[in-house]
Amino acid sequence: MDGGLRILGIDPGYAILGWGVVDFRANRYRLVDCGAITTGKEMPMPARLKALYAELTEVIGMFLPAVAAVEELFFNSNAKTAIRVGEARGAAILACANCGVEVYEYTPLQIKQALSGYGRASKEQMQELVRSVLGLERAPRPDDVADAVAAAICHANSSGSLSRIERATGVRMR
Amino acid sequence: MDGGLRILGIDPGYAILGWGVVDFRANRYRLVDCGAITTGKEMPMPARLKALYAELTEVIGMFLPAVAAVEELFFNSNAKTAIRVGEARGAAILACANCGVEVYEYTPLQIKQALSGYGRASKEQMQELVRSVLGLERAPRPDDVADAVAAAICHANSSGSLSRIERATGVRMR
Repeated sequence: MDGGLRILGIDPGYAILGWGVVDFRANRYRLVDCGAITTGKEMPMPARLKALYAELTEVIGMFLPAVAAVEELFFNSNAKTAIRVGEARGAAILACANCGVEVYEYTPLQIKQALSGYGRASKEQMQELVRSVLGLERAPRPDDVADAVAAAICHANSSGSLSRIERATGVRMR
Repeated sequence: MDGGLRILGIDPGYAILGWGVVDFRANRYRLVDCGAITTGKEMPMPARLKALYAELTEVIGMFLPAVAAVEELFFNSNAKTAIRVGEARGAAILACANCGVEVYEYTPLQIKQALSGYGRASKEQMQELVRSVLGLERAPRPDDVADAVAAAICHANSSGSLSRIERATGVRMR
C-alpha cells in the first residue's frame, strides 16, 4: 500500500475470533475483507488454539497487513474463562508476531472513543458507526467481526498511526 | 522410547515458563533435562509470546516428547493478569500442538495428589517429592521448573497414561 496503511483488526475469542482488514489512505478507510474464525466446543482446547492460529496465519498471508490492532479484553467473569480467552488471545498475537506483523492493543473504551468520540456507545451504535465510516450497505456481522473492524479503524485513527502516515506521506491528516 | 513414554511438563507463565522432560518406563521415572524460559518485563507482550513459543519449540525439537502435561492455573488475582497468563499458556500449548505433541492439562490439585497422595503439599514438600521420585541430589530450581517436572510425573502417574503404557507394553504397571 503506497503511502497508506493496511490494518488487521482482531477481536479474539476461542469460540469465535472476529477479524477485519482495513486500508487507511489519504484519510479514508476501506474495508478489504472481514470474517470470523470459529471453533466447535467439542474440540479440545489445544486443537482450537491450533485452528485459530492456522486460520489467522492464512488470513495474514492472504492480505499481508502491516500492523494488527487487537482488542484488549477485560471482564468480570471467572478466572478460568479469563485464562481461556487469554489463550485464544495469545494464539492470535502469536500468529501476527510470527508473521512479522506489529501488534497494537486497544481497550474497548479506546475503540469506542475512536469511533464515536465517547466511550459509551452501544453495540448497535458501534455497528452503525463501523458501517457509516466504511460506507457499507450493512454493518459486518456478527458483533465480533464488527468489533474487529472497529479495532482496525481505531488504530488508523490513533495519533500514533496518523503521525506515522503523515511522516510517510508528507500530508497533514488533521 | 521403546515401550516407554517421554513427557514434557510445562508450568506456563510469561515472565518465567518452567519445563521438564521426564522418561517413564518400566514404572521408573528419569529426568532427561529441565529448565526455565524467561522473558524480560521491558519486552512488549507479543515479543514475549514469540520468544516463549520459539524457545519451547526448540526444546520440543531437541527432546521430541510424545506428550505434554501443562499445569492448569487458577488464581484469585485480577482478570488482566489472568488474561496475560492465559496468553503465555496459549503460546505454550500452541508450540506443543504445532509440533504434534498431544497436550494434557492437570490442576495443581491433581499434580499434588499424584506426587504426594494428598492435595495440600507445600512447595517445599513438592520439591522434595520431585527430587525423591527422580532420585536427584537436589530438587530442580526454581519452583517453576520443579512444578513443570511434577506435572510430567503426574501425567505418567495418571491412570490414562498407565493404561496406555500397559496396552503398549503388555505389562501391568500396578
